Amino acid sequence: VSSPDGSVRSCLVVGTGLIGTSIALALRGQGVTVHLSDRDPVAVRRAAELGAGDPGVPRAQVDLAVVAVAPSATAEVAIGLLTGSVAATVVDTAGVKADVMREVRRVLGRAGHFVGTHPMAGRERSGPGAARADLFEGRPWVLVEAGSEEASRARARALVQLCGGVPVRMDEIAHDAAVALVSHVPHLAATLVAARLAEGEGAALELTGQGLRDVTRVAASDPDLWVDILAANAEPVARVLTELRQDVDGAIAALREVSEDPEWGRTSLRELLVRGNSGRARLPGKHGAAATAYVVVPVVVADRPGELARLLVDAGHAGVNVEDVRIEHSPGQPVGLVELSVSPGVEDRLTQALLELGWVVHG
Amino acid sequence: VSSPDGSVRSCLVVGTGLIGTSIALALRGQGVTVHLSDRDPVAVRRAAELGAGDPGVPRAQVDLAVVAVAPSATAEVAIGLLTGSVAATVVDTAGVKADVMREVRRVLGRAGHFVGTHPMAGRERSGPGAARADLFEGRPWVLVEAGSEEASRARARALVQLCGGVPVRMDEIAHDAAVALVSHVPHLAATLVAARLAEGEGAALELTGQGLRDVTRVAASDPDLWVDILAANAEPVARVLTELRQDVDGAIAALREVSEDPEWGRTSLRELLVRGNSGRARLPGKHGAAATAYVVVPVVVADRPGELARLLVDAGHAGVNVEDVRIEHSPGQPVGLVELSVSPGVEDRLTQALLELGWVVHG
Repeated sequence: VSSPDGSVRSCLVVGTGLIGTSIALALRGQGVTVHLSDRDPVAVRRAAELGAGDPGVPRAQVDLAVVAVAPSATAEVAIGLLTGSVAATVVDTAGVKADVMREVRRVLGRAGHFVGTHPMAGRERSGPGAARADLFEGRPWVLVEAGSEEASRARARALVQLCGGVPVRMDEIAHDAAVALVSHVPHLAATLVAARLAEGEGAALELTGQGLRDVTRVAASDPDLWVDILAANAEPVARVLTELRQDVDGAIAALREVSEDPEWGRTSLRELLVRGNSGRARLPGKHGAAATAYVVVPVVVADRPGELARLLVDAGHAGVNVEDVRIEHSPGQPVGLVELSVSPGVEDRLTQALLELGWVVHG
Repeated sequence: VSSPDGSVRSCLVVGTGLIGTSIALALRGQGVTVHLSDRDPVAVRRAAELGAGDPGVPRAQVDLAVVAVAPSATAEVAIGLLTGSVAATVVDTAGVKADVMREVRRVLGRAGHFVGTHPMAGRERSGPGAARADLFEGRPWVLVEAGSEEASRARARALVQLCGGVPVRMDEIAHDAAVALVSHVPHLAATLVAARLAEGEGAALELTGQGLRDVTRVAASDPDLWVDILAANAEPVARVLTELRQDVDGAIAALREVSEDPEWGRTSLRELLVRGNSGRARLPGKHGAAATAYVVVPVVVADRPGELARLLVDAGHAGVNVEDVRIEHSPGQPVGLVELSVSPGVEDRLTQALLELGWVVHG
């Protein structure tokens, strides 16, 4: 019998792929009873073998059902579970939210026992074998709560908390616009670059560097999954892509103009590159703060065991909390540069303390 | 006095930024005498402090001068060095080759003691502090040899070999078309995506995942350097970008059509995604990509002052030299994942030692 207080003690996970199995593993780790279901019996058995829960649909109503199936099947499965009262609360995990919410409300009148959710986590690999109990640890997990009754909201929040995720409340329109910007258009851009490589001389590809690998990494993803995602979020994606096309046009014009009017061409290219810098700098760093919020103190460190530890101990004695560390060196190089990121305002104290202890600090 | 046999025993590096300092570090590691020069005295001092060589211009002619200055200054500096007979051979490292070769030939009549080169390695960070001796390890290094005398070709090849690079012979036109495709347009695409993030709601950026980080990584690069590169290769870049725009137009049309004619819209999106798959699959394998194959040991660390120092001290007690540290940020979480990079073969010892000391190590 489901818990009336919004806690989650029993759960049915429908869809034992990467996301569903990872959720099941995390819940099991927290003592929740987990039932597993998938249209593919092999996937269920594998998830069960990994300790994710018991195969089969529960006999009594569970507190929570988690729908983790293909995006295009999500609304249907969720509505089926809600109609059958299999669980006190049903949540989904699909990457596009407006269409699922619309469909649930259209059929059932309101969200009620349903909460739309989207855990922002994934891996290159898919299937239950790639699942990890800590997949959601510290990752944002979007909750679309409008129209859901209070106990269901509480159960959805309990799910996020049990999985170690960070709850982010958003309405479905804001969510879909956000993922168009930070996920779907970047995916298309990677695809557009990769598509240029599909034809043409192989010799050029010999010059491939890490930059191209990074830019195109996500272009290796499953096309069928991505047709589903893009089609479900077509309007917001088209909007961002149309804005991006304006910059493409601007760049082409600037490049064509560089020989005729170098001043204008270069200024226009530079303006675009600087905007790219600003956008990149807005990506969240530690604890969701802007990456630029820290000050970097670069210190020359010998490549010997224990030197880095000694540096951090010395920094600690100066009463400074080091927020991040980057090491710039390669094996065999006698010295390297260690970059200590600290909160603004303490960099002078740290620099002074390290100089007094004999470290070479680059100003 | 320069070696007559095409070997490289002494070298002048002009421009102690990322590339110049990395070359200097690599050559020093192979026993070559290295002189360092830069119009910025601070940059020279920093490179020297990192062990890259001796500041100042050599008194006697050296075997090789490497020009690693801004692309727009490259031809001038190279011509100056060639005219002054400072080195038996002069090479450049600029990322665009046709304009440099044209200018050298125009002023000096032929390439002669000059060889155009382009090491296909870089980082989004710049300056001597970002330099690494192994930056070129296993990376392609283009040699444009047409019109150069044999001893100079030999010295250019010796440079590539001393730095651990993989020589790739190409003419300058093929080179510039290739880098437009595999480097310059991907860089612009990353910039175009990042530029979309420069304005708008910060809330969307909370949902940032690894995909966006990868796609936009190179967009953090120095805009002035990239204006130079793009302007120098304007025509080939504009050509590829114009082809890419056709696919952007196609994608926008398909997205707009998805609600009207789902079949056509989805088929068209799928075709683009599949082409992206094929292009991505053409990238050469890990061959040469991972310059330094470290093994990563992920450790859970509480976000408290001194914890990182304590971890590194414990790693040091295990007798393991930590080659690199990455802190994986978990927004709002009291713990984070610290990735310790170590040489292959010692990861089990480190893991065991840390587990015994009570650290949580992810397998």
